[in-house]
Amino acid sequence: MKDNSLSKISSTSMKVINLEQGDVLHFLKNSAESFKGFGEVYFSKINTYSIKAWKFHKKMTLNLIVPIGTVKFVFYSHVSNTFRVEEIGESNYRRLYVPPRIWFGFKGISKGTSLVANLANIEHDPKEAIKKNLDEISYDWNLL
Amino acid sequence: MKDNSLSKISSTSMKVINLEQGDVLHFLKNSAESFKGFGEVYFSKINTYSIKAWKFHKKMTLNLIVPIGTVKFVFYSHVSNTFRVEEIGESNYRRLYVPPRIWFGFKGISKGTSLVANLANIEHDPKEAIKKNLDEISYDWNLL
Repeated sequence: MKDNSLSKISSTSMKVINLEQGDVLHFLKNSAESFKGFGEVYFSKINTYSIKAWKFHKKMTLNLIVPIGTVKFVFYSHVSNTFRVEEIGESNYRRLYVPPRIWFGFKGISKGTSLVANLANIEHDPKEAIKKNLDEISYDWNLL
Repeated sequence: MKDNSLSKISSTSMKVINLEQGDVLHFLKNSAESFKGFGEVYFSKINTYSIKAWKFHKKMTLNLIVPIGTVKFVFYSHVSNTFRVEEIGESNYRRLYVPPRIWFGFKGISKGTSLVANLANIEHDPKEAIKKNLDEISYDWNLL
């Protein structure tokens, strides 16, 4: 079946201001096109080669960014049975906008723990999220 | 002159969910008392023993958190000529709410770069912020 949900994920290069004492990194402004309201912002650490997968949000819109380390995100459409992969982090500083109803997981791929920040349009609600075990969606996480 | 602006800074212990693949760390929800609207969220890295100081916001309300490392924040009231110090980070995971019109600076005090996240109620606007050089407000940054 045809669907274009994965094409609705957008990736935006974000500004880094280099300063001697430590860089300043943009994340999200109220005026950004991908800002769909403020529900909650939180962090998820991911250890080297660890994987957190799979999750599906019925309503939540995500804005994902990785200010420390590098993370591989894998998005899956159950409608078209297709994947989309995005690697973002310190050396490719981009923000991912992810609409609801897309399965996703992520893996830490840098030496040392990576940090994911998510700004969501609604507060955490276990009823709007579905989980699957890692092996319930077949994907080779060792692929480059 | 008496003023109580520094007592309006609040420090809130935030939840950390321990997971084998990497912890989840709360930052801010829409329903939190210290949420005063969403203008912008951004990161500021701070190297070990580096200092970023001083800044004064005329309008911006800050919500500061340190998901990586440890940071010493120093707040200064020019009205009462008094200081307030808060050390937050991975081992003391708290969020600081800072109303406008308070001078502040911060120093990285852990081995390795620390990461500060700020969720502000307005977007960055150079006209609403005033800066001073480090030596323009006399403070001994080596104090414990």
